[in-house]
Amino acid sequence: MGRWEPDSRGRLQEAALALYAERGFDQTTAAQIAARAGLTERTFFRHFADKREVLFAGSGLLQERIVAAVAAAPAGDGPLAAVTCGLDAAATLLGEARRDLARQRHAVIAANPELRERELAKIADYAAAVAAALRARGVAEPSASLAADAGMTVLRVALERWAGEADDRPLADVMRAAVAELRSVAAGP
Amino acid sequence: MGRWEPDSRGRLQEAALALYAERGFDQTTAAQIAARAGLTERTFFRHFADKREVLFAGSGLLQERIVAAVAAAPAGDGPLAAVTCGLDAAATLLGEARRDLARQRHAVIAANPELRERELAKIADYAAAVAAALRARGVAEPSASLAADAGMTVLRVALERWAGEADDRPLADVMRAAVAELRSVAAGP
Repeated sequence: MGRWEPDSRGRLQEAALALYAERGFDQTTAAQIAARAGLTERTFFRHFADKREVLFAGSGLLQERIVAAVAAAPAGDGPLAAVTCGLDAAATLLGEARRDLARQRHAVIAANPELRERELAKIADYAAAVAAALRARGVAEPSASLAADAGMTVLRVALERWAGEADDRPLADVMRAAVAELRSVAAGP
Repeated sequence: MGRWEPDSRGRLQEAALALYAERGFDQTTAAQIAARAGLTERTFFRHFADKREVLFAGSGLLQERIVAAVAAAPAGDGPLAAVTCGLDAAATLLGEARRDLARQRHAVIAANPELRERELAKIADYAAAVAAALRARGVAEPSASLAADAGMTVLRVALERWAGEADDRPLADVMRAAVAELRSVAAGP
């Protein structure tokens, strides 16, 4: 490891998002990201396996937090209420991120089909993990998968609205409103 | 175009699914598929752009049918009821396929991360098209996206259960039961 670098990871992420927005994801190299952050390429690769990983580095932690919150939901909670606890945990974690960076990340992914497929696959992984956590709570199939997937739909739609600035409220509020909206749509004619 | 070949397309699809199941998708070539079907490689490429397209050739038609049914749903139908009309149309189209071939297709896709990402992207495309059809019916956001995505969750879960033989009923019944289950989950505690 080289000399001590205060928050080099955060600087690399910020530099990467700026370059992806300016030149496009495909046209950006790890060397350019490192240079923009005032760091070496070697430092880049100490933090990220490749330039795509910059965009998905937080997904493992996010999945852990969601699943832990679903597992820890009150015993009386039904499947969707338990999933809502997971969404609250996601909003807490993601809501700490700077909204301008979340917006840049969202725009980069939306513009690149390969990244979009990757994002959808990550969210499908969350859904599978949440369905397993619901089954561990005694929820039968297909209810477990439907509640888990519906919850991840709420996550995706709420994140899009929050990052895309279609909704100005804090992420937790956007998420809760989307759950209520889903319940209302499902109760409707 | 060569000589007349009765249902060469269907023979190619069946041969491809058998080979993907036997050797794996990555280890199968278009030439091998054509040989297995008793056809030439040239005939293969008259029907499909590549070996991946064999698995996704029906998705354009499926999306059209779903969207048309959503658009044609009775005026009094709310967003989820309109989406259910789309799911009925999907069940009609997909239910015509041989279940053993649907099961093979499902297994091949589940075993290959790249194909799985592709499948998820196709379903996300359906959801976006359905959300647009709902907005055209006067449904506001985020209800339109939530109803469309929840409906495509039902499609995915029902197809998995039907193709994976977790549920023996006809696809239309599995689909309707999943919609009812989703409504019940959303109404629950």
